[in-house]
Amino acid sequence: MGTVYVYRRAHFSASHRLFDPALTNDQNDELFGGCSNPNGHGHNYFIEVCVAGIPAAATGFVIDLKKVKQVLADRFLNKVDHKNLNVDVDFLSGINPTTENIAVAAWNQIEPFITEGKLYSIRLYETENNFVEYKGV
Amino acid sequence: MGTVYVYRRAHFSASHRLFDPALTNDQNDELFGGCSNPNGHGHNYFIEVCVAGIPAAATGFVIDLKKVKQVLADRFLNKVDHKNLNVDVDFLSGINPTTENIAVAAWNQIEPFITEGKLYSIRLYETENNFVEYKGV
Amino acid sequence: MGTVYVYRRAHFSASHRLFDPALTNDQNDELFGGCSNPNGHGHNYFIEVCVAGIPAAATGFVIDLKKVKQVLADRFLNKVDHKNLNVDVDFLSGINPTTENIAVAAWNQIEPFITEGKLYSIRLYETENNFVEYKGV
Amino acid sequence: MGTVYVYRRAHFSASHRLFDPALTNDQNDELFGGCSNPNGHGHNYFIEVCVAGIPAAATGFVIDLKKVKQVLADRFLNKVDHKNLNVDVDFLSGINPTTENIAVAAWNQIEPFITEGKLYSIRLYETENNFVEYKGV
Amino acid sequence: MGTVYVYRRAHFSASHRLFDPALTNDQNDELFGGCSNPNGHGHNYFIEVCVAGIPAAATGFVIDLKKVKQVLADRFLNKVDHKNLNVDVDFLSGINPTTENIAVAAWNQIEPFITEGKLYSIRLYETENNFVEYKGV
Amino acid sequence: MGTVYVYRRAHFSASHRLFDPALTNDQNDELFGGCSNPNGHGHNYFIEVCVAGIPAAATGFVIDLKKVKQVLADRFLNKVDHKNLNVDVDFLSGINPTTENIAVAAWNQIEPFITEGKLYSIRLYETENNFVEYKGV
Repeated sequence: MGTVYVYRRAHFSASHRLFDPALTNDQNDELFGGCSNPNGHGHNYFIEVCVAGIPAAATGFVIDLKKVKQVLADRFLNKVDHKNLNVDVDFLSGINPTTENIAVAAWNQIEPFITEGKLYSIRLYETENNFVEYKGV
Repeated sequence: MGTVYVYRRAHFSASHRLFDPALTNDQNDELFGGCSNPNGHGHNYFIEVCVAGIPAAATGFVIDLKKVKQVLADRFLNKVDHKNLNVDVDFLSGINPTTENIAVAAWNQIEPFITEGKLYSIRLYETENNFVEYKGV
Repeated sequence: MGTVYVYRRAHFSASHRLFDPALTNDQNDELFGGCSNPNGHGHNYFIEVCVAGIPAAATGFVIDLKKVKQVLADRFLNKVDHKNLNVDVDFLSGINPTTENIAVAAWNQIEPFITEGKLYSIRLYETENNFVEYKGV
Repeated sequence: MGTVYVYRRAHFSASHRLFDPALTNDQNDELFGGCSNPNGHGHNYFIEVCVAGIPAAATGFVIDLKKVKQVLADRFLNKVDHKNLNVDVDFLSGINPTTENIAVAAWNQIEPFITEGKLYSIRLYETENNFVEYKGV
Repeated sequence: MGTVYVYRRAHFSASHRLFDPALTNDQNDELFGGCSNPNGHGHNYFIEVCVAGIPAAATGFVIDLKKVKQVLADRFLNKVDHKNLNVDVDFLSGINPTTENIAVAAWNQIEPFITEGKLYSIRLYETENNFVEYKGV
Repeated sequence: MGTVYVYRRAHFSASHRLFDPALTNDQNDELFGGCSNPNGHGHNYFIEVCVAGIPAAATGFVIDLKKVKQVLADRFLNKVDHKNLNVDVDFLSGINPTTENIAVAAWNQIEPFITEGKLYSIRLYETENNFVEYKGV
């Protein structure tokens, strides 16, 4: 049997503002448009975590998705759900919270704690129409 | 031919904080939980506007949905999309932005401008799991 | 036990052109915009048929949904799926195929053949954002 | 301000077999088809609970959806999720688990525990294509 | 022109119980939790079959999706839809029906019968939140 | 930081007829079935454009999705939305509008205009159940 890719999807609601502190407010407006509204806006994000590996013969699992669910909650969701991503999240401190940057940060939060199989990809949906994927390379 | 109900759905992204200024921060926390995070959080909202009437024989339309789309943009979406609902929106000033209150405010914004058929309902989705409907009565 | 409303959803793909033969092409353009493109355009429609009644004690069914599925196929879907709604459909002959008019025509096609419970509503989605409902009154 | 209808949607996974013990296996096959497979089959059900009322001025809530969520979990979801609806659920004992019958049973489980506003409807999706609604009358 | 990947999605409803016969009931409970409920539970599964190849000049098809649909029905869907995956399915006999194991079994059922292009991947959704992908290597 | 894949999804409604002019009408019927209905049929298509690259340190963007949105509109959507794909679209002239062929044509329309990052894939959904992906190789 070859590699199977197992996915766990979860949801969180957060606010953010795209903003580069090296630029003026006008330059931020020019660059980020409505996404740089000073008082912020927000999204219902969906995150999909994919772990790749060969299922264990005894369990038929690459990794118990309950473990993925727990790591995802402890290391990511509980820190971002119902938060302001610009000011409330330690691992996003000093980072402009674009979808790209949040996905990479999520990878770094989760990757060391996946101890069966290997973290293969993180997909992050900001809306149904805008989303990103990161594979750590 | 009887009454036909025509629906137009649209999307906006906004942030908010549930907060009653008559209460202390601790009381707000107790009442609203994570929804009262001081720095806010946000959602991808979907709004569904329903207009009821009898289709005109010539056009087959209750109302041209392009007109509904325009009223919805001018009177509601352009004022709330990529905004903070607590501080950026004139027609929500002094209103705790629960899904219920936003839906009623949307009704009041839109209803006078529906001049063919009658506004029948506003449905507002905060998430896939939490949503409200208002019919003006 | 009171009334239960049972729903069956189905899908069809069709093309159409909004067009009023009493008007010039320019007037049709003015009224219907891109929807009046002379060579047509198309949609993946979803239709939801709702039958209301009291479940039979023996079966727990208002009506066997397999019967609804069959009526819906025989009287509607098989006549519109992979068709041009302006020229291929007998029961739409001479009718401008707006979502409103298609929904009313679907009601008339289906209603006499629902022999357990009563047809309560027809909902027709032209897109995720534009849809109508008809209740026969 | 008029009545607002607030909705909470939730998910459960369960197995069932449609079966009338007053009939033979062949008669059950005839009546229920594949849904009467002796070893059962299953679904990812979605339930939508709607409570109607006038939002309280202080909170902007018809009812705190966290309370609806709790009642729904305690009285319904925890009893049906990851269960066999024919044999594992006390409040479905002796009831043929059609979507109609499950929705009515859910109403009876939940209705007495909604103490703000009034339970207005229960909608139960067996699949995206088959679903029912019950309003208690 | 390069390789195009064509996808066909389909649905089935089935019940299952995660269970390792080499373990006691308590050990199965410990390992699989509610998924090991002795009387089973169930899901609305979605399967996505992907075939890769270069479209034929004459038809513009990698493979006629009607053929994929037929193979998928004959070799997989008709054997699992409205069934109990632990006891009703020959090709799952002796296999713990985790999403991983079902996806691999689906690959083995389907792969030899894809005679235009090559089977590239099977994706299997147990729920919207839990799913797997297998590529045969 | 490694490569991030950013996606933009968009929608268009179009009609088409699968038809090979080298064949007779009967042969087209045999090959394409209902998809070769002489008067056409139609779909709500969704297209997903993926651009791969390393996010810029200053912006946190691989490419500003507003630019992707603009290229997608100018080079593709404005030419196909509310059109007949057999007769109204210059870049599909002489091409049988299968999902495969439309996706490859979309790649060719868009690829030269993606000037930050590289176009990585085009996914085109004809329906929820039938879709294709093209990666340019």
